[in-house]
Amino acid sequence: MQNFVFHIPTKILFGRNTVPAIGPETAACGGRCLLVYGRGSSSRSGLLDRVRASLAGAGVEIVEHGGVRSNPVLSHVRQGIGLARQHGVDVIVAVGGGSVIDEAKAISAGCVVEHDVWKFFTGRKSIKKTLPLTTVLTLAAAGSEMNSGMVITNEETREKFGTGNQLLYPRTSILDPEVTFTVPPDYTAYGAVDAVAHVLEFYMTTQDPDTPVQDRIMEGLIENVMEACDRCLADPCDYGGRASLMWSATLALNGLTAAGLGRVGFPMHMIEHSLSALYDVPHGAGLSAVIPGWLTWHGRRAPARIAGLCRRLFPFPDMERCSDRELAARTVTILRNWFGRINSPASLQELGIPATDIPEIARNAMGLAKIWRLNEYTPEIIEEILCLCR
Amino acid sequence: MQNFVFHIPTKILFGRNTVPAIGPETAACGGRCLLVYGRGSSSRSGLLDRVRASLAGAGVEIVEHGGVRSNPVLSHVRQGIGLARQHGVDVIVAVGGGSVIDEAKAISAGCVVEHDVWKFFTGRKSIKKTLPLTTVLTLAAAGSEMNSGMVITNEETREKFGTGNQLLYPRTSILDPEVTFTVPPDYTAYGAVDAVAHVLEFYMTTQDPDTPVQDRIMEGLIENVMEACDRCLADPCDYGGRASLMWSATLALNGLTAAGLGRVGFPMHMIEHSLSALYDVPHGAGLSAVIPGWLTWHGRRAPARIAGLCRRLFPFPDMERCSDRELAARTVTILRNWFGRINSPASLQELGIPATDIPEIARNAMGLAKIWRLNEYTPEIIEEILCLCR
Repeated sequence: MQNFVFHIPTKILFGRNTVPAIGPETAACGGRCLLVYGRGSSSRSGLLDRVRASLAGAGVEIVEHGGVRSNPVLSHVRQGIGLARQHGVDVIVAVGGGSVIDEAKAISAGCVVEHDVWKFFTGRKSIKKTLPLTTVLTLAAAGSEMNSGMVITNEETREKFGTGNQLLYPRTSILDPEVTFTVPPDYTAYGAVDAVAHVLEFYMTTQDPDTPVQDRIMEGLIENVMEACDRCLADPCDYGGRASLMWSATLALNGLTAAGLGRVGFPMHMIEHSLSALYDVPHGAGLSAVIPGWLTWHGRRAPARIAGLCRRLFPFPDMERCSDRELAARTVTILRNWFGRINSPASLQELGIPATDIPEIARNAMGLAKIWRLNEYTPEIIEEILCLCR
Repeated sequence: MQNFVFHIPTKILFGRNTVPAIGPETAACGGRCLLVYGRGSSSRSGLLDRVRASLAGAGVEIVEHGGVRSNPVLSHVRQGIGLARQHGVDVIVAVGGGSVIDEAKAISAGCVVEHDVWKFFTGRKSIKKTLPLTTVLTLAAAGSEMNSGMVITNEETREKFGTGNQLLYPRTSILDPEVTFTVPPDYTAYGAVDAVAHVLEFYMTTQDPDTPVQDRIMEGLIENVMEACDRCLADPCDYGGRASLMWSATLALNGLTAAGLGRVGFPMHMIEHSLSALYDVPHGAGLSAVIPGWLTWHGRRAPARIAGLCRRLFPFPDMERCSDRELAARTVTILRNWFGRINSPASLQELGIPATDIPEIARNAMGLAKIWRLNEYTPEIIEEILCLCR
């Protein structure tokens, strides 16, 4: 096990009827908030009105900043920063999924500095201060509600970059599984894929071979996300399934899984970010198109971990007679079949991206490869992986 | 899944060479500390001198309060409170295992109030304020380093009582597995038993049948603690084994396992506390004497969960043909055999406690049964369980 610091200051309020706590939790941070939300679903479901009522009831003034896109864009972040400054807000409230929360984080960091917020993402400036942030989560997926990361797309440069800082943890996040009953099947599936991808990235890129505590937790989370997603697609109002999916997705990327693994990489996300930046595909859909190809490529070089995952999660009779390579290939098949079952695209073709674009995607991905210091990835290697994703 | 609040403010610094951080971490809380420690081992190993040097280097004045016993006693807590008041300390530093940290917590809560500290344990007063606490952990066992609970023994009334409060979380806890290389085999085993017992209590007394996320985490932790304990006994300086045992024991009782289960009980601890209070046996040794009997008793009434644990953790060919009762009995046997292998007493007899004492132990346990509201436990039932522990 490698050395680690584990420190999650976020308070999670999980369960039924927890949304009305957003008012008091926010009021404890300040009296005027920027309310950040998306493009319709939280308004249609009535959630946004419940949040507004709770904030007003707690005496919190509201400045509205709606219209956040999936794959949130820098120009909209800058608008939010302008609003936050203009009205002198002292707390940010996010109502949404990872996109909304990430934009809210970017605003919370960007509105307290003179320079442009994008400099945090390119590594030219580091975050020293943020406004406090509270959230009401509407999608089990990204884990942003309980972590210190954020991802924003710069539409001018076509770069989707992420960064992290201890100050970006939300103060309080409210996780009511019932809020996600209205999430449609496609986004339910994409969210599950995102959560599985987070765990897979850690599981495959760990720097330490001796982390049984983390391994068992990660295997359990993958199993839970897959089972819970199946339950939610069979019955969107299955509270237990929604709760399991929500809490698993949060734990998948809150530090618990990665603590002790050493410096882990996010190569599948690196490639997916280029798909989102170039084609604006939903993040989870892009991930399910990348995962089989990347795992196939990785499994040919280092099959042991993928084979171990198969032994733990997908055992079958006479498993002992199979080689690591065979078990690795089997894992890829099982995941690809699961993507098929939940209707998440399992290839570039299913995403509608032509193979002739592969060189351009690889070129784009190299930008993030450099920033994330994934030094083993060259344009040739990324093209090789993308060819396996066709 | 039941509603829950999850909020662990403790910062964990885990790994090699983390002990020198105790100075700066403590200095961030105050300039004069009460240094709380046990009866020799941390002094003999040189750890205490390293802590003193780090504190002094960070400019923190030290008031010494050594001599904490395993099963820490109220009279010694009161002495610590007196010292803390007399010298006006503003932070408490604990160097030790669960006993030392629990006593430090009791002092941190008791030294800021006028009334006697025992009132917190009998429920007649509630904690509203504490001094900040930092810790250096020396034993993988209790989980106190990252939770909000504490247990103290009142030697006058022969009561071993526990209580909890959000303000009791340590600010920072330092977990260096190398510090535990010198823990002797018996206490290594007792610590592992304690960690397994914590998870078993939650696993068996959950109020919710649909908590797959928590179930997978709990099963993984039990597996890890058992494997890691075996590794540490085979080689006390096996870093990976010590690290796995330490982090598993912390996660076993930091809220992660219990969040979502509803109101869980601690019936095995309730009975063990009487063994410690009456005979001053090490907590883990008392637990391994209670676990087989309680599980046997519980398994006769409700075998499904124990059988499920067997299916997950201890699978064997033709398992499907066995009844829940058979699998429950098998789980008890496997745990009893493990206690035998690690030399932790698996019965009252092995603890040297005569069966004629059973009525008195049951009478004593009823005190805690009332405070913890374990209402289904009568003296007759506790005697019945204790007879199965003989």
